[in-house]
Amino acid sequence: MQQQIIIRKATRHDVPEIVRLLADDMLGSKREAYENGIAQSYYDAFETINRDNNQMLVMAEIEGKTVGTLQISYITNMSHSGAKRAMIEGVHVDATLRSKGIGQYMMEWAVTESKKQGCRFVQLTSNKQRKDAHRFYERLGFMASHEGFKLGLEKE
Amino acid sequence: MQQQIIIRKATRHDVPEIVRLLADDMLGSKREAYENGIAQSYYDAFETINRDNNQMLVMAEIEGKTVGTLQISYITNMSHSGAKRAMIEGVHVDATLRSKGIGQYMMEWAVTESKKQGCRFVQLTSNKQRKDAHRFYERLGFMASHEGFKLGLEKE
Repeated sequence: MQQQIIIRKATRHDVPEIVRLLADDMLGSKREAYENGIAQSYYDAFETINRDNNQMLVMAEIEGKTVGTLQISYITNMSHSGAKRAMIEGVHVDATLRSKGIGQYMMEWAVTESKKQGCRFVQLTSNKQRKDAHRFYERLGFMASHEGFKLGLEKE
Repeated sequence: MQQQIIIRKATRHDVPEIVRLLADDMLGSKREAYENGIAQSYYDAFETINRDNNQMLVMAEIEGKTVGTLQISYITNMSHSGAKRAMIEGVHVDATLRSKGIGQYMMEWAVTESKKQGCRFVQLTSNKQRKDAHRFYERLGFMASHEGFKLGLEKE
């Protein structure tokens, strides 16, 4: 990238852009609903994330225009002598701007930030359908050492 | 199990038992150090987990004896309309008491608890070497839908 990428903490005003980025995607398009306005649940989620010191939701910008988003969750576990780890979720780059190094810049920023916060690991899960994403994470040094299991819970 | 399993929140007094359970394991034995007493870092991690409302570290007991432990982390993300999810980590059952339904009881408790907390998903990652664990999670209805990536961070 010739242009400078700025990473900054997301604000409430960014919620529509975040939803747009999440929805603009092979899997996201099936599960995010924003055609009739941004659902209140996204704003509620933003507020929950925003007031939690262990959560960091950020925007990537180029010349004031949103180009990506990701979220880091810091979790302390008992294993590995009580190690803190960083979970990265919701890594999305604008669909028109892929393969230009923006995702790599964002991930390298996230890894640096996780080191600053004293984390011993960075981890993330990626849907098995996202083969391109897997090659991308492997190029960044991540190892696909784990199976990622999910169970959907029905509303009661 | 004929005997009743009790699940309760872990206290500081449980730290040595938690470390014993983590270490008493194919992978854990290589990475947990407690032969010269329990390292302070485990107590520090316990305090961090204990004061965070989004973390729940529990003990499973039978007749007052520790038989297992697990940790639930509640994380709100923007995706799936701002869904909250439960991450389960550090699921360990006493090595002498495996295949008796204790792990299943603990996991079912964790799923019920995650529903009560309003989670839309329960997720976990499991090292690819743990084939038995994978069959166990699949029997409980979990789908191995994701690749779990990890990056170790060196101390600076």
